[in-house]
This record gives sequence, structure tokens and C-alpha cells, in this order.
Amino acid sequence: MVDSSLVTELERRVGADRVSHGSAINDDDLHDESLHHRARVPMAVVRPRSTDEVAEIARFASEHRIPIVPRGSGTGLSGGATPVTGGLVVSFSEMNAVLRLDERDHVVVVQPGITLRELDEALSSSGLRYPVYPGELSGSLGGNVSTNAGGMRAVRHGVTRQHVLGLELVLMDGTVLRTGGPVVKSSSGYDLTQLVVGSEGTLAMVTEITLRLSPRFGYGATILVPFATLDQVTNVVSPILSSGLAPSILEYVDLIAMSSITARMGLDLGIAKDVVDATLAYLIIVLETRTREQLDGDIESLGELLADAGALETYVLPTAAATRLIEAREQLFWASKEAGANDIIDIVVPRSAVPRFLTDATAIAQRYGVFFAGCGHVGDGNVHLSVLERDEAKRNQFLDELFAYGVGLGGAISGEHGIGLDKKAAFLALSDPVSIDLQRSIKSVFDPQGLLNPYRLLDERPLP
Amino acid sequence: MVDSSLVTELERRVGADRVSHGSAINDDDLHDESLHHRARVPMAVVRPRSTDEVAEIARFASEHRIPIVPRGSGTGLSGGATPVTGGLVVSFSEMNAVLRLDERDHVVVVQPGITLRELDEALSSSGLRYPVYPGELSGSLGGNVSTNAGGMRAVRHGVTRQHVLGLELVLMDGTVLRTGGPVVKSSSGYDLTQLVVGSEGTLAMVTEITLRLSPRFGYGATILVPFATLDQVTNVVSPILSSGLAPSILEYVDLIAMSSITARMGLDLGIAKDVVDATLAYLIIVLETRTREQLDGDIESLGELLADAGALETYVLPTAAATRLIEAREQLFWASKEAGANDIIDIVVPRSAVPRFLTDATAIAQRYGVFFAGCGHVGDGNVHLSVLERDEAKRNQFLDELFAYGVGLGGAISGEHGIGLDKKAAFLALSDPVSIDLQRSIKSVFDPQGLLNPYRLLDERPLP
Repeated sequence: MVDSSLVTELERRVGADRVSHGSAINDDDLHDESLHHRARVPMAVVRPRSTDEVAEIARFASEHRIPIVPRGSGTGLSGGATPVTGGLVVSFSEMNAVLRLDERDHVVVVQPGITLRELDEALSSSGLRYPVYPGELSGSLGGNVSTNAGGMRAVRHGVTRQHVLGLELVLMDGTVLRTGGPVVKSSSGYDLTQLVVGSEGTLAMVTEITLRLSPRFGYGATILVPFATLDQVTNVVSPILSSGLAPSILEYVDLIAMSSITARMGLDLGIAKDVVDATLAYLIIVLETRTREQLDGDIESLGELLADAGALETYVLPTAAATRLIEAREQLFWASKEAGANDIIDIVVPRSAVPRFLTDATAIAQRYGVFFAGCGHVGDGNVHLSVLERDEAKRNQFLDELFAYGVGLGGAISGEHGIGLDKKAAFLALSDPVSIDLQRSIKSVFDPQGLLNPYRLLDERPLP
Repeated sequence: MVDSSLVTELERRVGADRVSHGSAINDDDLHDESLHHRARVPMAVVRPRSTDEVAEIARFASEHRIPIVPRGSGTGLSGGATPVTGGLVVSFSEMNAVLRLDERDHVVVVQPGITLRELDEALSSSGLRYPVYPGELSGSLGGNVSTNAGGMRAVRHGVTRQHVLGLELVLMDGTVLRTGGPVVKSSSGYDLTQLVVGSEGTLAMVTEITLRLSPRFGYGATILVPFATLDQVTNVVSPILSSGLAPSILEYVDLIAMSSITARMGLDLGIAKDVVDATLAYLIIVLETRTREQLDGDIESLGELLADAGALETYVLPTAAATRLIEAREQLFWASKEAGANDIIDIVVPRSAVPRFLTDATAIAQRYGVFFAGCGHVGDGNVHLSVLERDEAKRNQFLDELFAYGVGLGGAISGEHGIGLDKKAAFLALSDPVSIDLQRSIKSVFDPQGLLNPYRLLDERPLP
């Protein structure tokens, strides 16, 4: 039962218009996009509009020992924003401003609720962009910081971590702390910014983010390359990256995943039927350059590499088709969801191990009688598999074996989606207990009462 | 007094040939390159040859509460490796192997004692390089990790932090821990790798480093550009970086610093006398590309930008002169030292603030009657100033004011050299106490007895 006197106190402290409770709570604030929905009723959803209000919420929660679950726009895939029964959900949807854009320094300061799309629009006239490109543009920057989001352009531009220069944080005792700043270099103490990035909202609430931007490129081309085997796709990655061509995007999409997205989007890529029939997997490559001449030269060099690697064809897509293909690739999660996927994972392995990993994953899946389709950021070794298997026990056995295999190859359970609730059992089982102990001690330094986003990541207790 | 029974025990535990003590200690192991030499006699210098031996040293030190100062090759500039009286110096000079090179994954695993030069030689036939380029090639990778070293190529390639994918660590209780791995993406728990990078040897001893490599470029050009004012130099930086040209190096060298390095190296850059007479500062730009055509195009575009910005001339240097100029720039520290510099600092400010910072720094210096010459990684806002002032009190007053001014602009005290002993007073005075408290608590998690590299960075106690 919700203690209504607590809600009343919270309303008094941050303003009643910031607080929703009972039937006034919007269902959209009660889940993320994890395929494992867990219905939980929080005490209230709070929408602060300033750092001071966030600090007041933290003090309120600490005084009454109420758990807090921070959330951005709820596009997470791991249950990182699932409410705790009787706890608070702190939604940053009202803190979504661009606070400062410094075009000379290539730096922007934003509030955490701003989405990638809103940020891109705010930057459009500047000639700059935030180059990290997790597929879902409705994702918030706060959420991106929380999971150290990666996405398609990481092969050239890196992940969120490499673009966060500083943070404003609210600790659970209500203290406000600034880390880092608008500089790209520092050797002045432990890097608390980097510690908080990827900590899945368990260390502090992020109220401001200082991001490094990059110049937009003048020219670009999207190249679609069908191959007769998946091995050919994954084997061409090293030569491309060693050549110095620096593609912005280097994605593989297997046959099933490609059928699923082209069908869903009604996308005709103009591939000849005999090529389609011979194709088992596709490579999507985006090149971006400063000049037209360089683009032409890069396409030519790339074409030679691809031909040597056994490409069935090389399609330089017209702009409209290219845009739709990348959009379609972004939509693959939704296509998988509609197709009835029961789990979507984002394991990462050394990129040269991808062919072996996929071959062995197929063998493991066959042994369990489980079916999966896949795509991934193959330049990063980050493989996304949609697993279709309704039997939860069987599916989890398969995933446990797959995670252990990938970690054994030198990889990690999640490349970019985070651990959250969905993967914490596998994460805790496969991690060095020494590392987990250190991480839990660090957690206690920041949040001694354990109130911030509990029951996930390092916290083995089941979600109440 | 050194307790000889302890030395005997240490010799028994790790092997007598690993331990030097008394007059057998080499003076070179008792200091780094800080201009503030502090003579301290340790109990012993130990040179472990394996992770197991490092762990045994940690256990020995913990049992007897003996401080440990880890050291690489001793090229640090902040007193980070100055011994503690009666403590141990753990030198990694014998742990300098390349353990694994994976050319397909662009990953190399090294021991911490390997120098940048040794690593570059080991990579030379692979077509790959470790692109981080702190000037001093005799610096060790372990030391680079310790200070998050940056250097000239950071403007394009980033700093050490962005290239360290994983570490093997020895904790002070002798536990061995691996963090990260040979993957460029991970969202699987707190990033302990990033926490240790830049922690100046205060959290754990690093025994293995997994580094991300980049392809070597086929073509390059070094361009020397004299300007009539320093403001012109610093103002052209933003247009260059916004153009998308992505120079590998973008350095400013003021008139005095340039005279000092050309004289020391006997370097004739072939600049016409009337140009020399009109020049107050130089910009050094290195472009690197995949093709000759792109290099030519980039030089042409750069030339237009430079002409618009008021460059007196644009010299594309012949290869031999270019190599010597970059070497000379690397040697600037030594030139400054020979010229009698009493302090060398590496403050960082937002790059657009560099003109204002240098103007105001000159005014502050004049007020104190202090003289400085400078150069710096102007694309990163990382300014190196050699301060010539023998009166320590006056010099420190000037530096305190300068640091406070730079930090007030959004910068940090050290961009790449670290805090160590030399800058800890200013660092602690100018940092948010909340941040320092968090950092000290994290330190206690890793090193509860406070034995690892004590008396520097966060530790306000004077060096005994």
C-alpha cells in the first residue's frame, strides 16, 4: 500500500504538479522496452524541472529510505528503468533542454531528458553533430549515459563514454557535484565522469551532460553488399578496417533479419533476383568524407576489397534508398519484437572471433532446438541476436551457455544495452567475484543506503 | 634506518636478484623528471618479472605496512614516482614484453614496463600503430596509463584512456584482477579500467595492458606556419577543426620556445629572414591520409584556411626537416630544463579560451615579475608553460593564481602530466571537497591501508 502521507510530503517539497500517483500515473512511465515486462506499481512518478528539485527528491527518498528508479525516455532493453514497488520513478522528461552550445569548442551541454533526435535538430544549423548513433533516436541522452550506448557509428566514432566530457550529478544525500568539464584532456584525479557512464543509474542521478561534438561530413555513401556466406561477411571486416578506410557504419544483417526489415518497411533495394537467391548475409557500409573526390576514391578502394572478399555485388545506394535502409536497420528491434522474439541480446566478442562465435552459437542453438536471427555492429564484434523460444527455461539455458561462451572468447555480456534486470543473473555468475566486490563497495561509497536503482546490475536480490 | 630483516624476508619471497638495497640502488630509480627533486631513500628497489611476483610484493608490503611506489621508466614530470623514505620502489623495467599482438582485432597486450619506442618497433611490421604520442618515447606504457598521457596526436586520436581496453591489476592484498578485455564496447558493470587509468598508481599495480591500435597512414605532411601574433595562431584552430580536416598534430610554439628548440637541435627550417622577423608564434600541423590524392587535397584546403587567418607563410616541410622539427618539439622539455625552467605546467582550458588564457597569463606573470615561454597542444586547449622564476614563494603564488584562473575557465590543472607531488596542493585547494571525499573513499576501497603510492594526488600529508 502506498503511504499517502509520504506522497503529500513529496508534493509539498517539489510541487504537486511534479508528482503523479495512483491512477494518474501514465502506463508509459512504468516500463522500458525490455521484452520481459514486470508490472510494478511505484509510490509515485516525479518529473523534476531543475537540479534543485532532483536534489530535494534525493533528500526525501534518503530520509524515508524509499528506492529511486531514474528514467529517461524508456527505450532501454534490459529492464533498467522498471519501477520498484512502492518506490519513486524519477522521470527526466521535463529536463530536456540544450543549456549551452559552444560551436568553437565543439561542446554542447544538455539536460538528461533530451532525446537524440532533439539534440540532432538543435545541432543541425551548427555544422556539428553528436556522432554516437544508437538506432533509437527517441532515446534520451541520460539513458545513453546510463548504459554507455554504442550503436552503428561506434566503429568510427566510439561509444557514449568517449563523448561525455563532464557531468552534473545529484548524490543520494542531495549533494550536487560537477565532474569533468568542457575539455578533452585531463589528468587531475580519478575520472568520476567515466565511472558514472555505464553505471546504469546506480551511482548518482545525472542532471547535466557535457558532450563532445564532431563536424558533420559533407559527403557520404551507403553501400549494400550481398555475400553467399556469413563467414565472408565477417572475414572482410578486418581488411576494411586495416585499410584505413574508416567507415562510419559497418553492419552485418543475416538473411532472415534482412527479409524481416525489408518486408516490414516495404523496402525494395533493387537487388537482382539471382543475387538475392544466392545471398545468405549482407554487409551495410557507410562512408563519409570531407570531399567528393575522397568519397569517390574511398568507394573505389572499398569496391576492390569487397570483390577480393567474394562479394556477390556492390550496390552504392541512391540517397533515398540508403536513408530507408538505415532506418530499416534501426527498426530491426521492432521487427524482431513483432516477429515474436522472446529475447534480444547484444553480446560482444573480439571482432575476429565473430565468425567462430556465430558458427558455434548456431550449433549451440540447434542443440537446444532454439531459433535465432541476427545482425550486428560487426566492426565492433557486437552481435545482436533475436532469440525465438517461448520456453523460458530452455531459452535461459541456451543464453547462459551462449554468454559463457562469448565471455570465454574475451567478450562481455552486453556491448551497449546494459545488464539491468534481464542479464544480471548471467552477469553476476560470469564475473570475477573480486570485481563484483569492488564494484559493490564503490556503489556503497556513492549510495550507502542502496536506494538508487536497486535490484539490478550488481544487486542479486529479486525485484520486489 | 632500513630494517635489514625485512629486506632479507623480501629477498626470500621474490628472489634476491629482484631486490636492490643500500648502495646497490641505482640513482636513476630514485626520481622521475620532475623539476622538484626530493631525495628519498627507500628500503629497497624491487624488479618483479611476473604478475605472481608483483602479488607477492603486495602481500609482503601489506603484512608489514610498507608503502609501495610503482614506477615505469621514470619520465613523469610531477613526482609521481618519487620514493617514500623506507618504502619500496617497484620498478616494472623487467616486465616489458609484448604478450600478444592480434593484427585482425587491432589489439596488443603488453606488460607495463615496455616503452613507447619499444612498442612502436614491435608494431612496425604490422601496419598498425599505437597512435597516442606523448613526446617522450622512452616513457613506459604503465606510466602512460598512470597519468592518462596525452601528447601531440590527441587532437585526432585521443588520449591513453581511449586506447586502454583492459588491464590486469594487482591489488594491495595480492589479489589479481582482470578488467575489460580485447573488445571496444562494453556495457557490463562499472568500468574499473577507466577508473584505474589516470589514477597515478594509487589504486592498484598494473601488470598487463590491453591496447587498441590504429592503422598506420600511408601519406603524411608536416606544415609549419608562422604568424605575426599568438592570437592568430589560436584563432585558426577552430576553423581547422570544424573543417573536418582532422590533423594528427596541431601545436603552437611561441617565439622563445621555437628559438630554444631550433638552437638546441641546430635546426634550420629554411624560413626567410623577413618572415622570421615578423613572426611571434608558429603553428605546426601534421596531416596524415590514406592516399596521396587526399593528402594533396587536404594541404590545399588547409592552405586556404591558413591564408584567410593571416598566416605569414605556409611551409610544407621536406620529410627530413619535418622529422627533425617534431623531434625538436618533443625535446622542448629538455630545452626548457637546460634553459633553467623552474616549473613546467600543462594546464588545460577549453580550446576557444586559449587566446584569452595566454593573454591573461602574461598579464598575471607581469604582475608577479615572472617570466614564461610556452607551447602546447592547442587543438586540445592543453598549454605547456615553462616558468622561469627562482623565488619559490613568488613562483607558487603566480602558479596558484594561474591554476585558479584556468580552472575557473572550465579547465583542469593537468591535461596529461598528472598531479603527483608537485601539483597536489593546488589540486586539493581547487577541487570540490565532495569530489575529493568520493575519490578518497574509492581509494580506501582499493587500498584500505593507504600503502600504494601515498603522499600524492589525494593525500595531503607531506612526503616523509
